[in-house]
Amino acid sequence: MQNKDSKGMTIKKNEDFSEWYQELIIKSGLADYSAVSGCIVYKPGSYQIWEKIIHIIDKEFKNIGIKNCYFPLFIPESLLVKESEHVEGFVPEVAWVTHSGNSKLNERLAVRPTSEAIMYDSYSKWIRSHKDLPLKLNQWNNVVRWEFKHPVPFLRGREFLWNEGHNAYSNPEELNEDKEKILNIYYNFLKDYMALASFIGKKTNKEKFAGAVATYSIELLLPNGRAIQGPDYHDDGQNFAKAYNIKFLDENSKEDYVYQSTYAISTRMLGVMFAIHSDDKGLVLPPRLSENKIVIIPILFEQSKKEVLQKSNELKKLLQEYNPILDEREDYTPGWKYNEWELKGIPLRLEIGPRDLEKNQVVLVLRHSGEKKIVNINKLEEEIPLLLDKMHNDLYENSKKFLESNIKEVKNFKEFSDAIKDKKIVKINWCDRTECEEQIKEKLEGVKSLNIDLEKNPLYGEMCANCGNEAKVICRFGRSY
Amino acid sequence: MQNKDSKGMTIKKNEDFSEWYQELIIKSGLADYSAVSGCIVYKPGSYQIWEKIIHIIDKEFKNIGIKNCYFPLFIPESLLVKESEHVEGFVPEVAWVTHSGNSKLNERLAVRPTSEAIMYDSYSKWIRSHKDLPLKLNQWNNVVRWEFKHPVPFLRGREFLWNEGHNAYSNPEELNEDKEKILNIYYNFLKDYMALASFIGKKTNKEKFAGAVATYSIELLLPNGRAIQGPDYHDDGQNFAKAYNIKFLDENSKEDYVYQSTYAISTRMLGVMFAIHSDDKGLVLPPRLSENKIVIIPILFEQSKKEVLQKSNELKKLLQEYNPILDEREDYTPGWKYNEWELKGIPLRLEIGPRDLEKNQVVLVLRHSGEKKIVNINKLEEEIPLLLDKMHNDLYENSKKFLESNIKEVKNFKEFSDAIKDKKIVKINWCDRTECEEQIKEKLEGVKSLNIDLEKNPLYGEMCANCGNEAKVICRFGRSY
Repeated sequence: MQNKDSKGMTIKKNEDFSEWYQELIIKSGLADYSAVSGCIVYKPGSYQIWEKIIHIIDKEFKNIGIKNCYFPLFIPESLLVKESEHVEGFVPEVAWVTHSGNSKLNERLAVRPTSEAIMYDSYSKWIRSHKDLPLKLNQWNNVVRWEFKHPVPFLRGREFLWNEGHNAYSNPEELNEDKEKILNIYYNFLKDYMALASFIGKKTNKEKFAGAVATYSIELLLPNGRAIQGPDYHDDGQNFAKAYNIKFLDENSKEDYVYQSTYAISTRMLGVMFAIHSDDKGLVLPPRLSENKIVIIPILFEQSKKEVLQKSNELKKLLQEYNPILDEREDYTPGWKYNEWELKGIPLRLEIGPRDLEKNQVVLVLRHSGEKKIVNINKLEEEIPLLLDKMHNDLYENSKKFLESNIKEVKNFKEFSDAIKDKKIVKINWCDRTECEEQIKEKLEGVKSLNIDLEKNPLYGEMCANCGNEAKVICRFGRSY
Repeated sequence: MQNKDSKGMTIKKNEDFSEWYQELIIKSGLADYSAVSGCIVYKPGSYQIWEKIIHIIDKEFKNIGIKNCYFPLFIPESLLVKESEHVEGFVPEVAWVTHSGNSKLNERLAVRPTSEAIMYDSYSKWIRSHKDLPLKLNQWNNVVRWEFKHPVPFLRGREFLWNEGHNAYSNPEELNEDKEKILNIYYNFLKDYMALASFIGKKTNKEKFAGAVATYSIELLLPNGRAIQGPDYHDDGQNFAKAYNIKFLDENSKEDYVYQSTYAISTRMLGVMFAIHSDDKGLVLPPRLSENKIVIIPILFEQSKKEVLQKSNELKKLLQEYNPILDEREDYTPGWKYNEWELKGIPLRLEIGPRDLEKNQVVLVLRHSGEKKIVNINKLEEEIPLLLDKMHNDLYENSKKFLESNIKEVKNFKEFSDAIKDKKIVKINWCDRTECEEQIKEKLEGVKSLNIDLEKNPLYGEMCANCGNEAKVICRFGRSY
């Protein structure tokens, strides 16, 4: 048992976001550091949320014909190097297995940083005819990327969990249809379960996935003004098909390479969600992803203890669909318990004492706002879902307001630079040239393109806010995690 | 598309079990070989069964307070070597990561063969007081053991999927209570879902888990007369607690080491299940684990095609809880489709042609027995669950008969040796001495102890069937996979 005084949060979110975040993750019991530098332990507090994410998204995937499978963890070096851009993107971060027991292996094995290489080797054997297409396979697995930047729990680490979907089609039209569906699955999940506002767009050529024709990303904004990439989707065209020789015979017996796409959501999103919603008291969890949606705190006095505990147990049973925790401990005060469950992010607190019992009522307190509501016990089953929905909507609206108020449209480099200093995401008319992007990166250290607006384009004759050439797209830039 | 003639099974189960098994796995679409020797691809056909196993067992685990988490894939060498027996057991099979990108690591990292070392390092930090106990954590993950024996899909490979549960208690009594529950969860799962008969027992000292005080195993018998170990449970006593320094203060503030247990079921059980139930036509799956429980085959003639297809689609909708496949393809004959779905192990075939339509009936065919039943469409929803239950029970009874008829009690070494030649599991009165066990292994090549009967003991004065010393236990021996 830790010292009671040291249990709570001590750092303020708006004073030192980075320290606050790390204190939050450890003290709320979500994760812990491990003996392996850059790798964390996902404790039940965070892992159970990841299980819910898998459950919800997996159902949506299955609805559009995506099936799960499992490919080997290891990728022989000779396979990994087949697609040259892909290799360059990943090799610097690969963890290499060189020995088994005391023997040296004939060929080094990469611990998968992503599974294109090993999967497409199989695809090239499995796919022969248009009848074998589309092939839509997904894995929920672990991947390793040996980053050397400072690791941060969930947000940046050397091993993470994700889904990696790998679809193959006989034509780009079907691929594009699924692209919309898959991006929407991710975007709506962020909105409807994580209560997070985000924006979809296309990555610039410089920032797209190694080996892809086009990358689409869903981006978010952290409380420290850093943009962070969420789920993404890659249109690989026929690039990998050519590198891994994945050909099919179409209906006219003509041979062609398949069209491919990949898509992913990772445990990084857990960190983004914890960071955006939580506060100086600790974790705030959107109720739809919270394992225990209610904590029941009986207010115990010697005289009325028996009755209050009995009613508390009845309520626990009544509300079992919310998987409530009943905190009956007698060696802690109610106030201390409030703090503990606020730290751990239980969405709704239900207090019940002898006076409440007399009036057949309870006090409900919402974690995110501190709002209190006295509710008659007969109305509980009606009131609780409304309160949980309200909480979800509040969190989403807060996140949307925060995001929108921090995106600034600018017209020239001076405004661009000022907005970046002001920790904004900037939106500019842009020429869409890698050379110009590199110039921006040089002039504004740490700034990079986030993604290109898919819906709006510059007006005829508008110019790039950086270089003055003709503007082709509207692009968002910012300091990025 | 493969040549139609080569699609079906060509090898007989009782003529060459090993070749038959490998043909079964590939042709029924369960798995494929990969570019990494000893590692297979779990195709959707097998992976969806693994997902069901996780779902069902995980629920049972959660009912007894076991929570899921995720620990790093890598284990620093210095941690792995802390428990000496454990190390000796695993180090010869460890895959070692030595480099990241182009840099050599300061310390080699083991790709987890099992997670005691990395988990217990955290346990030693997390556990302080009896209030922190019991701690019951589980992972569903991938592990790597670089075996050099001939790999066989599911049954023996270098990477497999499993659950690894790691419980810590303040006393052996609570540990033992959970031991019964956990072994029962596994045993009943094998019986109630996999339709497999098995026997529980205690491993001999020679065969127990590296580092455990006692190992309990659930053993099965393959069609080739080889015993194979299924799920297991290890009572680690305080061995790991001492090696990893996991101490707690009890209610009297006295310090003690925790008591620990571990338990696992792996994807090996998929292979055991496929091997035991399947036949010369292909895969036979117990219906409770089959993703698609029914395949609907419309018998198409030009004149009545429209009506038959319409009714088939209605039936698909009516029976949707069984997730039926409707095989409407017109370029394949019904007979060819029968073969294909038999190969793939769909439990129930529903045939419907124009004459059936007239009589408002269908023909149902059970995969495992070929048994046909004509059923009125109005009775379908009543009849199908009965047939699926019958199938499950038949499969279980067959497996039980096979197992029981192949266990032979013997009284002396001559009978022992004869029974082994006859591919039996033998049950003997045994002295429970490692020396005697080693003698048996020397005299009968390939034979080892399976497990010790937990319920029966030798009568007073009975002697060891091998060495003639006093018998202490009843032990099963056999050739093992």
